[in-house]
This record gives sequence, structure tokens and C-alpha cells, in this order.
Amino acid sequence: MPDGSSGSRDAKRRSPCPLACGLDLFGDRWTLLVIRDLILGASRFKEFSASPERIPTNILADRLNRLRASGIIEQVAAGDGSRHPAYRLTAKGKALGPVLEAMRDWGLRWEKGTRVPKNPG
Amino acid sequence: MPDGSSGSRDAKRRSPCPLACGLDLFGDRWTLLVIRDLILGASRFKEFSASPERIPTNILADRLNRLRASGIIEQVAAGDGSRHPAYRLTAKGKALGPVLEAMRDWGLRWEKGTRVPKNPG
Repeated sequence: MPDGSSGSRDAKRRSPCPLACGLDLFGDRWTLLVIRDLILGASRFKEFSASPERIPTNILADRLNRLRASGIIEQVAAGDGSRHPAYRLTAKGKALGPVLEAMRDWGLRWEKGTRVPKNPG
Repeated sequence: MPDGSSGSRDAKRRSPCPLACGLDLFGDRWTLLVIRDLILGASRFKEFSASPERIPTNILADRLNRLRASGIIEQVAAGDGSRHPAYRLTAKGKALGPVLEAMRDWGLRWEKGTRVPKNPG
């Protein structure tokens, strides 16, 4: 999916398979890491970009736009009065928790040397 | 991960996070669809490429090589005496079942019009 535009999503779908449709939204190396950070308490652009994987800022901006367009995150006013926006998961986004948990468990079991990072929140 | 080479995987890791390490292996639009097809009974190149998402053959060849390199699938002799190889999931690959199930459940719940395809096996 080269762009982050909303609408006409059905037309871009590769198949009606729920797995394929999910991968159209978050099938890349970065998107689920942003969602991980949101689950762990991050809400600001700077917080996402400070994660150890060091997501490039242009990719982060694109992923935040795509996640908003697909209703997985929403933009909210920053609680501290900052002009910079904050983001939080919608119900649709929070529902990805079991996906991340299954991936985490798989990685811990099958990829040596992996460990759960400390909670930044 | 631009190439499919094996070895020195640790050096290519972005972080010790099990989620990030998993996404280094299958964080793209196609890899988990190949694993889906293997779970559903497909084992041959032609079967994977016949799935409704129509994975390009060059991408399919790359993904099969990467999945073999990471120990998620293994190549086996075809049961029908064909010279074409067949593939099957290893224990490490079968262990991705819960990841796919969680994604499937999320898609069915949150992406309208999705449905589980008929089992080709």
C-alpha cells in the first residue's frame, strides 16, 4: 500500500481474507512497533522516534497518517498544553493487543536473545 | 530486511524486542500469507502463487528462501515423485498459528466484508 489515503479501501484489497486485509494495514516492519509503543504508554512523535529501533521520522509520519486513516489511532490534544499532537489507540487499535502478544510470545520462544523491553510508560 | 541471506541475524536485529525480531522475519505484506497457505494445506510453489492475492513469483521465491533461512519452513521431496520441491512448516513455523489466528480474528471483527477463505487443502 504505497499511500496513506483513506477511502476506497475495498478497491485496494487483495482479497476478502481477514489476514490479507490486516496485512494491508500493518504488514510492514514498523507499524506494529508504533502500536506496541502506544500500548506501552507512548503518545508523542518524539516518544515513538526515541524507541530503540529508531524508526525514521518520514516513515513514522507516514505510519501515523495511515493508522489514523484506518481508524486504528486517533489524534488528541496533548495533556500538557503542548501544541504538538498526541495519539492514542482507538478500540480498533486496542483490539490489536492479542496480535502483538502472540508475536511477542513467538519471538520469546523462537528467537534467541530476545527480551521484553522495559515499559516506558 | 532487503536480502534473504541467512546467518548474522543478530547483527541485523533492530533491537532485542521479540516483536521487532519477529517483524524482521515476517513484517511485510506477503510472508504471513504464505504461512497461511501452508497451514491450510498448500505445499508447492504453484499452489502459493495461485492464492487469490496473486503473490508475484519473484517475491514468492524470495520469501520461501527467507523462510527456509530462518527455519520457519523446510523443503521436502514431493510426495508424488515430482522434481519440483514441496515445503512444509517446521515446529517454529507451526508455532506462528496463534499469530495468524489473532490477525484473522481482528480482521473479521474490524474490517467489514472480510471472510475466511475456503480451505484449499
